[in-house]
This record gives sequence, C-alpha cells and structure tokens, in this order.
Amino acid sequence: MTLELRARLAGIIPPVITPLSDDGRFDRASAERLYRFHLEAGVHGLFLFGSSGEGPLLSEATRFEALETAVRIAGGRVPVLAGVLEPGTDRVIAEARRMRELGIDGLVVAPPYYFFTSQDEVIEHYRAVRRAVDLPLLVYDIPATTKVKVSLETMLALAEEGTVIGAKDSSGDAVGFRRLASKKPSGFKLFTGSEVLLDAALLAGADGAVPGLANVAPELFVQLYDVWTAGRLAEAAAIQERIVKLFEVFVRPDGTIQSGYAIGSMKTAMNLRGVITGTRLCAPFAAVTAEHQARVRSVLQESGVL
Amino acid sequence: MTLELRARLAGIIPPVITPLSDDGRFDRASAERLYRFHLEAGVHGLFLFGSSGEGPLLSEATRFEALETAVRIAGGRVPVLAGVLEPGTDRVIAEARRMRELGIDGLVVAPPYYFFTSQDEVIEHYRAVRRAVDLPLLVYDIPATTKVKVSLETMLALAEEGTVIGAKDSSGDAVGFRRLASKKPSGFKLFTGSEVLLDAALLAGADGAVPGLANVAPELFVQLYDVWTAGRLAEAAAIQERIVKLFEVFVRPDGTIQSGYAIGSMKTAMNLRGVITGTRLCAPFAAVTAEHQARVRSVLQESGVL
Amino acid sequence: MTLELRARLAGIIPPVITPLSDDGRFDRASAERLYRFHLEAGVHGLFLFGSSGEGPLLSEATRFEALETAVRIAGGRVPVLAGVLEPGTDRVIAEARRMRELGIDGLVVAPPYYFFTSQDEVIEHYRAVRRAVDLPLLVYDIPATTKVKVSLETMLALAEEGTVIGAKDSSGDAVGFRRLASKKPSGFKLFTGSEVLLDAALLAGADGAVPGLANVAPELFVQLYDVWTAGRLAEAAAIQERIVKLFEVFVRPDGTIQSGYAIGSMKTAMNLRGVITGTRLCAPFAAVTAEHQARVRSVLQESGVL
Amino acid sequence: MTLELRARLAGIIPPVITPLSDDGRFDRASAERLYRFHLEAGVHGLFLFGSSGEGPLLSEATRFEALETAVRIAGGRVPVLAGVLEPGTDRVIAEARRMRELGIDGLVVAPPYYFFTSQDEVIEHYRAVRRAVDLPLLVYDIPATTKVKVSLETMLALAEEGTVIGAKDSSGDAVGFRRLASKKPSGFKLFTGSEVLLDAALLAGADGAVPGLANVAPELFVQLYDVWTAGRLAEAAAIQERIVKLFEVFVRPDGTIQSGYAIGSMKTAMNLRGVITGTRLCAPFAAVTAEHQARVRSVLQESGVL
Repeated sequence: MTLELRARLAGIIPPVITPLSDDGRFDRASAERLYRFHLEAGVHGLFLFGSSGEGPLLSEATRFEALETAVRIAGGRVPVLAGVLEPGTDRVIAEARRMRELGIDGLVVAPPYYFFTSQDEVIEHYRAVRRAVDLPLLVYDIPATTKVKVSLETMLALAEEGTVIGAKDSSGDAVGFRRLASKKPSGFKLFTGSEVLLDAALLAGADGAVPGLANVAPELFVQLYDVWTAGRLAEAAAIQERIVKLFEVFVRPDGTIQSGYAIGSMKTAMNLRGVITGTRLCAPFAAVTAEHQARVRSVLQESGVL
Repeated sequence: MTLELRARLAGIIPPVITPLSDDGRFDRASAERLYRFHLEAGVHGLFLFGSSGEGPLLSEATRFEALETAVRIAGGRVPVLAGVLEPGTDRVIAEARRMRELGIDGLVVAPPYYFFTSQDEVIEHYRAVRRAVDLPLLVYDIPATTKVKVSLETMLALAEEGTVIGAKDSSGDAVGFRRLASKKPSGFKLFTGSEVLLDAALLAGADGAVPGLANVAPELFVQLYDVWTAGRLAEAAAIQERIVKLFEVFVRPDGTIQSGYAIGSMKTAMNLRGVITGTRLCAPFAAVTAEHQARVRSVLQESGVL
Repeated sequence: MTLELRARLAGIIPPVITPLSDDGRFDRASAERLYRFHLEAGVHGLFLFGSSGEGPLLSEATRFEALETAVRIAGGRVPVLAGVLEPGTDRVIAEARRMRELGIDGLVVAPPYYFFTSQDEVIEHYRAVRRAVDLPLLVYDIPATTKVKVSLETMLALAEEGTVIGAKDSSGDAVGFRRLASKKPSGFKLFTGSEVLLDAALLAGADGAVPGLANVAPELFVQLYDVWTAGRLAEAAAIQERIVKLFEVFVRPDGTIQSGYAIGSMKTAMNLRGVITGTRLCAPFAAVTAEHQARVRSVLQESGVL
Repeated sequence: MTLELRARLAGIIPPVITPLSDDGRFDRASAERLYRFHLEAGVHGLFLFGSSGEGPLLSEATRFEALETAVRIAGGRVPVLAGVLEPGTDRVIAEARRMRELGIDGLVVAPPYYFFTSQDEVIEHYRAVRRAVDLPLLVYDIPATTKVKVSLETMLALAEEGTVIGAKDSSGDAVGFRRLASKKPSGFKLFTGSEVLLDAALLAGADGAVPGLANVAPELFVQLYDVWTAGRLAEAAAIQERIVKLFEVFVRPDGTIQSGYAIGSMKTAMNLRGVITGTRLCAPFAAVTAEHQARVRSVLQESGVL
C-alpha cells in the first residue's frame, strides 16, 4: 500500500474543513457536497483533520463519520489521508488504528504537542507509530501549534530509514523547506502548506500542496498546479498572484491571522458558494460575525471567486 | 459541592505520577502503594493527570483506572482532583463528564493547547466547561505547554463571575502570581506549582502548592507548609533550602530541565524509595537510564531523603 | 576597589531615570534634584543607565553628563554604578573605559544583544571586559531585552573565577533566582530587579534590589528593606502589599506592560512629586499623554505616595 | 538623490564582511582586495555593516575607515549602502550623519533593538531618521536580532508616505515577503536576504538580494540574477541548486546555524580564496577553529568554488 500511495501522491490535496450543524454535530449532507465539490474541482486527494479541519477539536464520533463519508465519496478515485494530531504517541496509535479500519490511504501525523518534544523524542514517536500501524505515514511539521520544528536531520533520518514516505510542511520555514527539497531521498513526497508560496515550492521541487485556502477556491490551486506542470509559467504567475490576493480572506482587520478566524473564513466561503450549510466552528472558536462574513464576501468578489 | 471543596482545599496537593507496568498499562498495585504513601506523608489532596502525571499522554483506560483507584484509596479523607488537559473544549467536556462519574471532587483544566488560544477563547473555554459539568473548576495555567498565559484580567474575570474557584499557577511568572495574589477575590484558591518558591508563594498569600517534586519527597513539602502556617519561619527557611537542593534531581547533566527527564526522576525516586515497581514512562519519553538513576540516587542521598 | 565595593553593596539601589529637557538634552538641574531626592530617601546606591535609565537610547554626551553629576551629588556617600548596555564587547569596553574616568564604583554589564549570544560567548564577553577595565563588574541578566538568559552554570563560573562580583537579576525567572541564591559563592552580591518580589528575594537571601519602581517611591523600598532586615516581618508584608498596588502604575489600560509606558510613568511620578521638570522620553518612545498622566496620578494617590 | 539611487538599486548587493587584522583593527589592504573582488564578480552594489558585516560589534573607527575605503574603491560605479544598526533612534541619527559625510548612497536602518519596539514606535523611528538625515532609507527587517517584525501594514505605510524607498527582508517570513511583494507601491525596492530562496524571491517580484553567502561566492549570485532576468529558467534552477548546496557552509556539525559561525565561514572562504588575510572576528564570537576551516574548505571544493 505504501508504494501504491507514493505513486498516487502529488498535486493539490485540500486540508478540508469539517462541516458542523448548528448543534455542533457532524453535518453529513454538507460534507458530502463539500467532498464532491473538491473532487469536481480536480483535487488530487483529500486530507481530513488537519488544522483547517479542526482535527484536534473534533469529537471521536465526528471524526469517524467524516472519514467514513470522505472514503465513500472519494470512492478510490483519489487518496484520502487523515491527520492524527494527538498530544501523545499512544493516543496517536489508538486513533490511527481506528482510522485504518475505515479504509484510508495514509496518515499525516504531527509530533506530540503538549510537552515540548525533543528531536530524539520526535524520531521515537514516528517509529512507534510506524511499528504499530500498517499505513503509509507523512510528517505534519507545524511548529506554530506543536512547538517543535522537525529538524532537517530528523526528517532525513525518518525518510531514509523508511519510517515516513513524505511530509506536509506547514513550518513557515521556507529556507528549511528549500534545503529539505534539495536533500530529500528520491521518492520522498514533499508538500507545502503555504498558499502564497505554491509556485516557489514547485520551483524548489515540491510534489504538491495542502493549502488551507483550497477550502475557499480549490479550482485556483488545481489550475496553478496544472499550468505549472505544463511549463506555462506566465499563466502560473498570474494565478499565483490571484491566490495571494485571495489570501487576504484570512487576515483580520488588525492585520493579524488567527486560526479560528481563518477557519471561519473557509467555512464562510464554502457557505457563500452554496456548498455547505452554516459556518459553525468548534469551541472555543468564536462564531463568525456578520462583519467577518462581509469581509469574506468582499474578498471573494474582488478575487472573482464569487 | 463547590463550597465544600473550597472549604477543604489548601496545603500540599501532589500532582501524582501515574505508575505503569513494563508493558505500558496502569500498575494498580504500585498506584495503591503510591497514593497511600502520599496520604501517610500528610498531603492535603491528590491531583491526578497533571503534567507530572503524564496526563495528556495516557490512554483513556489508564486514566479511568487510576482515578477509580485514587478515589477509593483516598476514601474521602482528602479531596481528589483530576487534570483535564485536552486540546479542545468539547474533548475537555467529554472527559470531564466521564471523570465526574468516578466521584472526584474537582477538575483542574488547562486552556486548549493545539491552536494558540486568545484570552477571549480562554474565557469561553472555561465558561463552556462550567456550563456542561457540575464540578468545581480550577484553572491550570501552564504556558510552557499550552503556549498561552492566562492573563491576570482573564483570571480575575473567571474568578469573579464564579466560573472557577481557584488556580494552579505553573506559569513561571512570579510577578504575575504576586499580582494575582493581591487582586484575587476572597475565597479564590491559589496554588503554586513552583517547588523552590513555596515559601515565597505562602508569603504572597497562596493557599498551598501542587509541586511536582512532592512526588520525590512529599514529607518535606508537608513539613514546610506546617511550620510556615505555625509561624516558625526559621524552620521553614531551612526546609525550603533542603527542597532547593533536592530540586537538582530534575536537572540534567547539561543544566537543562526537560519534562521526560523530570518525570523519570520522580518515578525513579519513588522506585528507589520502595513505593512503586519500575520506572516506565509514556512514549515518546525515553526510558530512564542507569546514569540517570544514579544521579537521582545521589541527590536523594545528599538531601537525606534516601 | 572590588573589595571595597563588595563591602558597601547592599540594599536599595534605584535604576534611576535620566531627566531630559524638552529638546532631548540632559536636564542637569532636574538630575541634581533627582539624585538628592533618592539620597534623602535613604537609598544605598545609585545605578545609572539601566533599562529604566534609557541607557541604550542615550547619546554619549548625556551619559557623560549624567554620570559626572551623579558622582558629584553622591559625593562618596553611596556607591554609583553605571550600566553598560552595548550591542558588542568592544563597544562595552570602550564605554566602560570612558565611564571609569568619571570615578564610578562599578559597572553593571549586559550580554551583547544584537546577535543572539551563546553561553560560551557570554563567558568570553565578561572575561574580555574584566581584562580590559579595572572596575568591579556585575552581570545584568535581562533576557527580555538581550534575548539570552545568563544560565546558572555561566553565572556560577563567572562568580567563582572572580570575573564578576554580583548580578542584577531582571530575568523574570524566579526559580532560577532561587537556585542561584542557594548556589552562589559567599560574597557574591545578588540583586533582584523585581519590585513585587522584594520580600521573596530577601527571603531567598538576596542582598537587595534594583527596582524600577523605586523611581516612583524610593522611600517604600528603603522602608521595606529596613523593616525586613530588622526582622519585623508583618510590617514588611504590609509595605510589600503597598508596593504591589503601586506597581499598577506600570500597567497600561489593556493590561500589558511596555518599556516606554513604564519609563513614562516613572518620569511622570517624579514630575508630579515636584522632583523633575517635564517627562521627556528618548525616541522612539511616545510622549506621555494626558490620559497616561492622569492614571499615574490616580495610582499615586491611591497608594498614598501623592 | 533618492530618485537616483532608486534608479540604480537592483540585483546582487553583498552584505560584505569587515576584514580585521589580528589585533582587531580594520585591515584596509584586505578590504580593498575584497571590495574589488566583489566588483569584479559583477555585483550591483556594496552593503557595509549588516549582520554579516558585524556592524553592531564594530568600533566607530573601523566603521569610518571601512566606509571611506568602500566608497573610494566603488568609485561611483555601484551604489554603496551602509547599515545603521543602533539600539536607539538618536544613536541611529548620529551615526547616519557621520556616514553621510563619507559620500554613501543610502542607509539600511534596523528598528531599535534593545527594548522591544511596537509598530507605532517603528514608524516613529523611521520618520525621525528621515527628518534628520538627507539620504535614501531602506528598512532592515531582521526580527531574529531586533525582536520585532516590521509588519506589512507598517512597511506599506512607510513606503507610501515616502519615508523609505525599499527594504532588505531578512525576516525569514516568506509568506510575509510574498504578500509585501504583491502589495508594495511601484518603485519600492524589495531585496531578500535569503540565499536559498533567491529564485523564489525573483519569482515573487523582488528587485534583488543582499545574501550573506555572496561573501563566499558572489559570482554564483550574479550569474543566477543574470540568467533569471534573461529568462533562462532552467539555468537559473541549476545555479540555485548549487547555492543551496553551498549554503551548507553556514551549518554547524550539529545542524544549527549561529551568527558567529556563519560569519566565520564567510571570512574563512574569502581567506581560502586568497582575497583577505586572516579570519579574525569581533568579540564575543569565537575564533575560527581548524575543524571549522576544514569544513568550509570541503564545502567550497564540493561546490566547485575552490
């Protein structure tokens, strides 16, 4: 299965949001429409329970239902990956085993994140998960939430020994990403989480992207990936510039970016585009305000998405 | 029940370690001896599943068994508190409800810690838990792991509206602690997590301490608390100085302090003192080495604990 | 001279503000009144060019004039110390040599702070200054500005080899302070920069304090030091509590503390108390607003200082 | 003059090292060879006293001599820029006025960096320098040393009001860089400090680079810039990859990057290439070891630079 996933893993894999009903439960009907919307936009995979998917905030029941739905909708046409963002190794393993039963194609696992984790502990974490669960693993490198950067040395060690088959880099460390792209073993799958740096990541040799903003407009990312791989660089530059402008949807009036606000923007965009019902977020995120919704609408209209 | 716990909450409440067998399961026999050991040392409460208790790394089964055991051993003589350190609000609520069934006296709840949490979100988090679970709540303020300091303003707001009845301050911010001690409403229970600052905390008006080092020598903390409250300050100073020297048990050869090493020191101390079997830690913490054990033994002997 | 300063160094040593005229030059007349005001309040030394003194922002001419004035006013009755907060070692040495000509008693030197400084570099820095300048040295440990915490091991190494005779701890790390107080060689002079923790610092064995808030009310700190050393602990507690309330003068309406605002509060307090003319701050700090002045006045009145 | 500099400012502008003799003084003969070496490599400007130039550690005398030498050697063929990295606004102004007398073309100014600087203070800082000194200004954005990121909003405000004509971005924030590139006013000159992201920066619309690694091999950066601007992207990719490999010269055996080590690598490379005498660094940086020199030599040989 590892080889199979490797062969299929490339392109745009949205870290899809998790639609919730007004009472906070999983909204299956919205989710079905959402996953289909992405597939119709041409995405190359679905990634559930990343940060954009509010993974660490969801109940077990919601995670189960969402994954079951995504696997069913995807129907084997594209790989379905699940994020496992648990505070400790044993909890990652327990969750990963439950997920495996649902027929997913791979796991994207973050380091433990309650305690500060040393590089030695990061390595032991991935090895333990690898030993316990027979599914391809990718590293989720996201120090803004986990407090630890998976170092270049750690990443290469895990890659070379075959513990992991790839990584989603949401580290914000573009220099480290470029160095990893240069040093990684052949076949190691490298994805960026950075919307506005997709062209730069492809230039560096990345295999694709897992961009939160693909929840707002997956078609733009698919187009960018397609024209880039076709070598039409001038078109790629124009699409990238549209994406940079669309990124403003994540920025609050005071110029800062916060997770709850950004995920609220994604849900609002999908709501405004008629894909999902409501914009309910997990606690403790605040509900989307009318002002917030108006800002999202405005950016979508300026960007030609609405 | 809130009033009842408030009346009883003061003194030394160890954040007890969680004994594990070699295969990583809960070691009930060791735990029974451990909880009795603390009670015989005169502690004024038991706090399970804090950082020292490896709370966020434990399986649900282990948490259930440990809590059931502690409640049974305590037998109502001292309050039993449980830490709820979950990455999101709904998961805190689900866990708290399960714990409540076991007859505990109160909850010590950390802010959500995967996403960075704003002060507004911290407030909403505690209110939501308060609405959902009928148990007294204390704030667990530990920014080194949660990334967010519960601000003075937030703490006072939660205290004054009655959402929480107290706090465990493991923030390392002694200035903030002193300001909180001065401004807190009457009846708000304030505990320090700082072993070496216990006298300073009592001087500032703290109600007691939840010190990880009480896992190594609870008797010293109980003695310090007793002589301090009896006004015998010179004796208190001497005991505090012994505690400062004993704190070296947490310090690695390179001068740094890391969670896995410190918890390993606690388990080693209790093992060397004949209380628990083994020193098994949760993954991804590394096993205690022979060198580490020798250092612990040496510090315990120099401090007269062994 | 080292021995002489050591013998005299204890108690309350305000990190005095630097009075400026409206055009930003040194205001000699205000400074003379200010230094006399502190001496009449009973302080045990004067410390110029710390953070409260805006040391790193002052022109060379202002530093020269201020130091010459302080030495003259002090007249040998109390030691005069000068902060040397320069981004590099050679610049510290050059500045220290100029200061030495003015007859000061000792230097309080921060680590280099433009580049991040390793512990090995911290040690080399102090040794180089020690070799080049024949004046007693104290470490200024203030990681909030210098980015580096002088580690316990580094501090002890510098102390034991005689490179430095003491330290001003503005690290905010009360645990580290307590450990240093326990481990420091006899005769090493340890001062806290923490206003609200003065009693705790004395309890831990500190020799005194260099508190920015002494710029607002030096008399309170001198009184606290005096009653503490006389063993009248209940009186000490009452004064410490007044100081905690007075500390609010540094807190902005939004609950945060910023250097420019805090130093503005100091200058405003001394202005309101009739000691200095104006409240001019160095660029880029914003001028004190009328609202800010009203808040300072209000806290001073509530605290009985005005 | 502003307009003139703007018209000429583009391409590769090395942040040149400052050659020192064994006794720590400016090594004029080495500097003359060094500046000529860069000019012969085709660089488009010289930038003195950045981080690579050890600017904040140098004595005033060294800065004066180095600048006088650089202006003389450049002879008007390329612009000469000087970094002004002083802890406070008035000291920036005093230094900038001295530098202006030497005939330089522009100033690259960092925010004040001893105290933490708010965005309002950053703005006031640049406006004050702009009012006081008649030279084109660029922002030096380097939060790893100054502790403050110049926000997108601040940068745009300073750009639009004409206070600054450009920026050197050494922030490591590639997302912020891309957003700034998209939003900046026409004519605002944007340079990256990132060696391994030069192609990505040019793709984003940057005007050029100020890469520390140009001290090791300026010719590679000039080539990359030339082939990129000629639209020969495949060649650009190959050169960028060589630069990524050459970047290893900055990495210590333990995988970390430290300023002193990296600047030591630059001086060692220029020494090995026969351009400068010795490798002396400013205190408190440690001297280059034989092992360090061997590593540099090895990387240079593997990269075909030696």
